[in-house]
Amino acid sequence: MVGGGAGAFIGAVHRIAARLDDCYEFVAGALSSDPGRALASGAAIRLDPARCYTDYREMAHAEAAREDGIDVVAIVTPNHLHAPVATAFLEAGIHVICDKPLAISTAEGEALAALARRHNRVFALTHTYTGYPMVRHARELVASGAIGDVRLVQVEYAQDWMAEADKQSDAFQHSDWHNDPHRAGPTGCTSDIGTHAFHLAGYVSGIRPSELLAELHAFTPGRMLDDHVQVMLRYPNGARGMLWSSQMATGCENALKLRVFGSKAALAFDQESPNELWLTPQGGSGQRLTRGRVRGAAAEHATRVPSGHPEGYLEAFAQLYRDAAARIHAATAGQPVPEATAGLPTVDDGVAGMRFIDAVLASHRAGSRWTAL
Amino acid sequence: MVGGGAGAFIGAVHRIAARLDDCYEFVAGALSSDPGRALASGAAIRLDPARCYTDYREMAHAEAAREDGIDVVAIVTPNHLHAPVATAFLEAGIHVICDKPLAISTAEGEALAALARRHNRVFALTHTYTGYPMVRHARELVASGAIGDVRLVQVEYAQDWMAEADKQSDAFQHSDWHNDPHRAGPTGCTSDIGTHAFHLAGYVSGIRPSELLAELHAFTPGRMLDDHVQVMLRYPNGARGMLWSSQMATGCENALKLRVFGSKAALAFDQESPNELWLTPQGGSGQRLTRGRVRGAAAEHATRVPSGHPEGYLEAFAQLYRDAAARIHAATAGQPVPEATAGLPTVDDGVAGMRFIDAVLASHRAGSRWTAL
Amino acid sequence: MVGGGAGAFIGAVHRIAARLDDCYEFVAGALSSDPGRALASGAAIRLDPARCYTDYREMAHAEAAREDGIDVVAIVTPNHLHAPVATAFLEAGIHVICDKPLAISTAEGEALAALARRHNRVFALTHTYTGYPMVRHARELVASGAIGDVRLVQVEYAQDWMAEADKQSDAFQHSDWHNDPHRAGPTGCTSDIGTHAFHLAGYVSGIRPSELLAELHAFTPGRMLDDHVQVMLRYPNGARGMLWSSQMATGCENALKLRVFGSKAALAFDQESPNELWLTPQGGSGQRLTRGRVRGAAAEHATRVPSGHPEGYLEAFAQLYRDAAARIHAATAGQPVPEATAGLPTVDDGVAGMRFIDAVLASHRAGSRWTAL
Amino acid sequence: MVGGGAGAFIGAVHRIAARLDDCYEFVAGALSSDPGRALASGAAIRLDPARCYTDYREMAHAEAAREDGIDVVAIVTPNHLHAPVATAFLEAGIHVICDKPLAISTAEGEALAALARRHNRVFALTHTYTGYPMVRHARELVASGAIGDVRLVQVEYAQDWMAEADKQSDAFQHSDWHNDPHRAGPTGCTSDIGTHAFHLAGYVSGIRPSELLAELHAFTPGRMLDDHVQVMLRYPNGARGMLWSSQMATGCENALKLRVFGSKAALAFDQESPNELWLTPQGGSGQRLTRGRVRGAAAEHATRVPSGHPEGYLEAFAQLYRDAAARIHAATAGQPVPEATAGLPTVDDGVAGMRFIDAVLASHRAGSRWTAL
Repeated sequence: MVGGGAGAFIGAVHRIAARLDDCYEFVAGALSSDPGRALASGAAIRLDPARCYTDYREMAHAEAAREDGIDVVAIVTPNHLHAPVATAFLEAGIHVICDKPLAISTAEGEALAALARRHNRVFALTHTYTGYPMVRHARELVASGAIGDVRLVQVEYAQDWMAEADKQSDAFQHSDWHNDPHRAGPTGCTSDIGTHAFHLAGYVSGIRPSELLAELHAFTPGRMLDDHVQVMLRYPNGARGMLWSSQMATGCENALKLRVFGSKAALAFDQESPNELWLTPQGGSGQRLTRGRVRGAAAEHATRVPSGHPEGYLEAFAQLYRDAAARIHAATAGQPVPEATAGLPTVDDGVAGMRFIDAVLASHRAGSRWTAL
Repeated sequence: MVGGGAGAFIGAVHRIAARLDDCYEFVAGALSSDPGRALASGAAIRLDPARCYTDYREMAHAEAAREDGIDVVAIVTPNHLHAPVATAFLEAGIHVICDKPLAISTAEGEALAALARRHNRVFALTHTYTGYPMVRHARELVASGAIGDVRLVQVEYAQDWMAEADKQSDAFQHSDWHNDPHRAGPTGCTSDIGTHAFHLAGYVSGIRPSELLAELHAFTPGRMLDDHVQVMLRYPNGARGMLWSSQMATGCENALKLRVFGSKAALAFDQESPNELWLTPQGGSGQRLTRGRVRGAAAEHATRVPSGHPEGYLEAFAQLYRDAAARIHAATAGQPVPEATAGLPTVDDGVAGMRFIDAVLASHRAGSRWTAL
Repeated sequence: MVGGGAGAFIGAVHRIAARLDDCYEFVAGALSSDPGRALASGAAIRLDPARCYTDYREMAHAEAAREDGIDVVAIVTPNHLHAPVATAFLEAGIHVICDKPLAISTAEGEALAALARRHNRVFALTHTYTGYPMVRHARELVASGAIGDVRLVQVEYAQDWMAEADKQSDAFQHSDWHNDPHRAGPTGCTSDIGTHAFHLAGYVSGIRPSELLAELHAFTPGRMLDDHVQVMLRYPNGARGMLWSSQMATGCENALKLRVFGSKAALAFDQESPNELWLTPQGGSGQRLTRGRVRGAAAEHATRVPSGHPEGYLEAFAQLYRDAAARIHAATAGQPVPEATAGLPTVDDGVAGMRFIDAVLASHRAGSRWTAL
Repeated sequence: MVGGGAGAFIGAVHRIAARLDDCYEFVAGALSSDPGRALASGAAIRLDPARCYTDYREMAHAEAAREDGIDVVAIVTPNHLHAPVATAFLEAGIHVICDKPLAISTAEGEALAALARRHNRVFALTHTYTGYPMVRHARELVASGAIGDVRLVQVEYAQDWMAEADKQSDAFQHSDWHNDPHRAGPTGCTSDIGTHAFHLAGYVSGIRPSELLAELHAFTPGRMLDDHVQVMLRYPNGARGMLWSSQMATGCENALKLRVFGSKAALAFDQESPNELWLTPQGGSGQRLTRGRVRGAAAEHATRVPSGHPEGYLEAFAQLYRDAAARIHAATAGQPVPEATAGLPTVDDGVAGMRFIDAVLASHRAGSRWTAL
């Protein structure tokens, strides 16, 4: 793991996710660039001090050189380090599991995609919400034609944490890397959660917009990046859509919601109730499909416990780790990518996300003009 | 009543609404321009045949001339007749309760507003959803500062009836007046339900956008008017918003939903569950406020039965009739507009709706450009 | 109408219900036994003073004698007057619409049933909740075999009004007729709302228990009647069930909920969300059936507006009035009972309710012994 | 671990739960009494073959004798082995984590409790649902007086798996140990899930009934044990309650629901939506408290990820493991039981559960007589 020192939320989540299905052993880390913190963080999770690095390049070289070196690295740093770190490990022949967004520019992202392909390494991108069984099922339903032709996509991702009083301070605005274009990239809320919404919409609907129109906004005084974004979407097949994402949406916890309306039926998924998926036929009444009760290879592949025993965010995250493990095993054995892992987001999804960010920015700067994607 | 002959849905609804609180007696009508249908429709509801007219102008004159003539007329015709009919009755000194949209052009609407003012007649516009006690309560909460400054407005109104197979036929497209620009006005879905969404958002939030950007769309082949509209909104105070409305939203019944996010709390209302209103403080957990349990003059004014005994659409509609009756009584008695009826939509709301339609059209035609409202 | 003077909640509800579908004209009343209040209450609703009676017997005779006398009387008095008032009107040949419980003893109830049959008069009992379209639909689904053999019935009716501080006073306990065995009958909560729950369970499930076991309880100090009852049920076909009802259920508004589990599927209805009904097949996921979307003669007969336009308590009440009107018309015309009105509760349901009360009391007094019903 | 060989659902769940918070290392097992299956099951999870036992007694002795022997054993066998296995390990000085029900008789249970006390070993009982943060929070709220005096307890646990066609076969009835009194104990559904409901009710409400009245039932032909139980409860403080539990409740997944009504407010928890808890004040509207948003030591102790990132069943299970680990650490260090682990169910809860089963049986056999508990 690179990043994820003591106190880092997402690092701890990655470690639980890796443990849950017992496919990984955690043996080395560059948990912090600060030597003391790196060692202490490693000790707290019983790492061998010899494998607690402070420089990710050193870690990549050293681990690649060991007989028992790591097979895969998890990258949980601020955004601007995703690409350099991933590059170092890919070049050392090590598979990568990387937080989103993939990079801080499309160029960086495309270079990573090319590199991963050249080295034939697995590159998983943790669009966590795609690990939910009911998201997998939704995707399968759409692909099977169950909802007909997609006509409308409505997706939103709303949080309220940036609206807290302590986040309105100058101190916060200058300390947190999420607010710093050098570390976060050219957008804020858009990169942070808007890309999740964008990815989920494409993942389930099976279609990607050809044009978009966007407006960014920062409600927080003194803030350099957007904390709110709203987007209109046009699809090649004539479908329409809207996306909005905000970190200023008072009272919202982690409200990622997707609705896909087809010519035959509609689907609705709410991340905060991930064990259910609503399927409503045209002119009819809704059915609350539930995890463990629906039949379908994709959902069954992504679940562990029977219906009525809720699975949550950590299980979704673990699913990405489980899928990545299966791909790494296959790669190591010289086998093709296992079909069951088709739902794992990769570096290509990351590139698509970077292009989304670029188009949003371009449209916004042009006064919300329709912009090709 | 003008319009509302046998088989007309909205005419029957108006009649129930008028009866419910026992403030009206139904005594005359121009229920159809077809003489036979006018008489038969009147007979079915026990009207005196002498007061079953076939021409609304004749009705206005005849009723104005009677000692026991009508005090108020309900207009439930296709859109293009709203203005001419209302004009005839206002000129005859008769109060008006009119279906929305107010007219088929802003000019028509403004002329009506001027006329109503000149004749000092009550002019109620049936934006039905404002009759719900919890909508009244939401408006009162926002006005009282309970949610702080409004930052975000998200409103949608989705139906699926136009996506039914029988609505996709040429026959339907050519017969139903909703599809005919001459009778429906220059927009379809936008006038029909988009104006409800637009009105509700302003009614509750207390703010109106200064600019919008829109895209209209017709999914139905051969259709001349929009069956789908999506809009982005900017408010003078810096707030942002989105509105969408569709009659092609598969599986949606009458899904009018409003969310208003303020600096302190957020409100959410769903027309299909009208006895509740969600209030969520920043950083906190949601409270499901219920009709009959919340204390507040506006909600109490608009309800009839205790909490837990659901009220619905007809009661909301009846509330507009009840408020209009109170205003008419006051007008007749030479008294000021009763304060309790402040929530009744009027001809001015209708003009605002017409300007919304104009701005949407203008933006759409200019390639979704930001357009002043 | 007998009872329902100014300020009486249920009288006003009956009048709205009667008006809603335009099947009744309200022309006479014994709204109070106090002459001044009777006249004032009548004047407030524009009754002819000559038909504002202070004695229900006088009203029955006088109206029966008039050419234009009433066809039907609505009885909205305290419980102990239901039987005497109904008797007077039945004997005068006038149809009856009566509040529940039917009487204050089974003997009284049986006598009424016999009398109604002898005079061949319509006798509707306002088990209001049976007027909901989705309750009618549930009943039709069960009767059609859609859920298979009924195995389990779970019904509850919980309110919290008796737990309010002002209801805990001696003054309240001694003034309100609900607490006085002479006027309310031998049980409190059981008669008041328990009978609704019992009736609804049988109405939908199509089966009635052969044995029950019960415990009554009064949480309120100084209270003479139960404010809480819990019951276990055995059915002739081996089905099991539970019923509880409480007016001390903190935070509950009007929480009447029914679940019926069959061998093939289960149904769930919640009175506070009356436009929906949940149908869940064995081993499957639930479907949220909605009013206006389900196809079925019973539901369609009992509704007025399209799906997504919520109907509520007043509409359900109005349905009973509408059904009663259809039966009265048929009776007047010498025609058989219209099939579509099969869902109207009658005096026989009232007798069944009285027997339920008796069995609950007997079981409770015997230390919660299983008691035949 | 004893039990939990390949294919056993609950064994796998225990192992995930143990891994999730990284407090355990899995090193030895008697996964099956069949030598081949024991070895194969161990190999599948990378156990050292030398520590794959086929006899739990042998395992207890051998591990107790090792320098690096296990600290704690997880018991996931059929019910009748819980007591003998736990006895063997307690006597070997090894802490125990045991599935519920604790034993197949109260006597066995009491002996275990005495033994655990004598050897001063941690004995955790996996009443999984007590691991949910919102259950912990509910318990804390009641203890703090937030809902006032408890008046009513309504708890239910409904599943439908026994109603599946393949469970109705003789083959199933004779093969599955859940149906065999020798292995399951004297009750079926009551032990299996009724004890969970009973425990949860006491855990949250803080009160335990002094008397109960029960009826058992078996809907399944040929079944020797109950598949349905319904119970009425009386509490020492005058509170009343009901409990029902069924494995024949068509369409129910894992529907464990608890409502506690106090003099000031009511709480409602539904295991299938474990990230929320409803708190409704007397006479007021409900508040949907959410995990991560509520402030309270108990909930914060039992959670890992921020609000809006759902936690589920495995996390609840892991919480019991985490609490047990903290107790074992404390015990090893000679420290008192950590206060934060007060929410961990123990052998005493198991004994209470056995007494509940006894009282249910006794009441049922006496014709549903009130029976002291």
